Amino acid sequence: MDFSSKLLEQAVDEMSQLPGIGKRTALRLVLHLLKQPEEQTTQLSKALLELRQNIKLCNNCYNISDTELCEICANPSRVSEIVCVVEDIRDVMAIENTGQYRGHYHVLGGKISPMDGIGPSQLTIKPLIEKVQAGKIDEIIFALSSTLEGDTTNFYIFKQLEGTAIKTSTIARGISVGDELEYADEVTLGRSITNRIPFENSMKS
Amino acid sequence: MDFSSKLLEQAVDEMSQLPGIGKRTALRLVLHLLKQPEEQTTQLSKALLELRQNIKLCNNCYNISDTELCEICANPSRVSEIVCVVEDIRDVMAIENTGQYRGHYHVLGGKISPMDGIGPSQLTIKPLIEKVQAGKIDEIIFALSSTLEGDTTNFYIFKQLEGTAIKTSTIARGISVGDELEYADEVTLGRSITNRIPFENSMKS
Repeated sequence: MDFSSKLLEQAVDEMSQLPGIGKRTALRLVLHLLKQPEEQTTQLSKALLELRQNIKLCNNCYNISDTELCEICANPSRVSEIVCVVEDIRDVMAIENTGQYRGHYHVLGGKISPMDGIGPSQLTIKPLIEKVQAGKIDEIIFALSSTLEGDTTNFYIFKQLEGTAIKTSTIARGISVGDELEYADEVTLGRSITNRIPFENSMKS
Repeated sequence: MDFSSKLLEQAVDEMSQLPGIGKRTALRLVLHLLKQPEEQTTQLSKALLELRQNIKLCNNCYNISDTELCEICANPSRVSEIVCVVEDIRDVMAIENTGQYRGHYHVLGGKISPMDGIGPSQLTIKPLIEKVQAGKIDEIIFALSSTLEGDTTNFYIFKQLEGTAIKTSTIARGISVGDELEYADEVTLGRSITNRIPFENSMKS
């Protein structure tokens, strides 16, 4: 694309580096900002800069937080002995929205993925193992997405925990509530039969 | 959505005010920025701010420009007596990409649209009429998109020009090059028959 303005070109170039945003979309977004009051652009720039410069990770669970210890870890009514291992803050938000979990989290910050150059040392696996070795945790719940990378990460952590007396579990895989069996994929349906639960348990909440 | 961080919430709120970007996409973009080097966020913020604060409109054609007179208007090899009326810079870029047009442009900055509260006074119609009255222009080419708003705007300008000796034209509507007649809509096909051109003209470039 040939731009009549260097300023416009720079803004579009920077914008189009965001994932899923091409040059055309970037141009549309930037032209939208030009039509809005200058304040909107100022606030957007300020919010992004402040976030990037001042954001902290919770000292205990490595979730994104404004304080040294995040709200969840600082809440005394939550069970600190149960820890749910997740990939990032989006998973924490999804589980929190269910209202079904009262334990702590441990945010890995990604999954082991040699293809993307992400090894165990780039993730917060070491602090998790240390917490376990310090005897602070009774149970670890693996809640990573069930992809090749997710399974690899689960297995790596599981291996690291060998020799400790900790209880490990993983979230149940099965047919979604409200789904038709007919349209479910074989792997999920197969797992939901193998891991069937006593009927009386399914009537709780 | 409940965020564990006010900074994150603010950034997502500002980001999701852009058109076509919802809360979830905004969160994905913001988390992406957090994973990239701090420099990327700094440059994005800077580029957006500089654009918004320093951008100029060309004194002659009202296109976005870094200088008082844009490159096209300042180019002496272009024909200043023919003016193509377009909606915004994207249309200028599209026509420039064809390499078929050597005249000037006049960027309206929008279309007359009472539904969105945009009247003739918010557009650069007055300066266009003044240029015509000053006798600087021989021909005006209307190149707005053929929607209700585009047609209204064309007609409004056409009416304003009544009494002047200026030649007006509009870009040809018809079947796209390479398209099958079978799948063309009736209005376009009808227009392309009514406005048929001598066959020998169609063989030029």
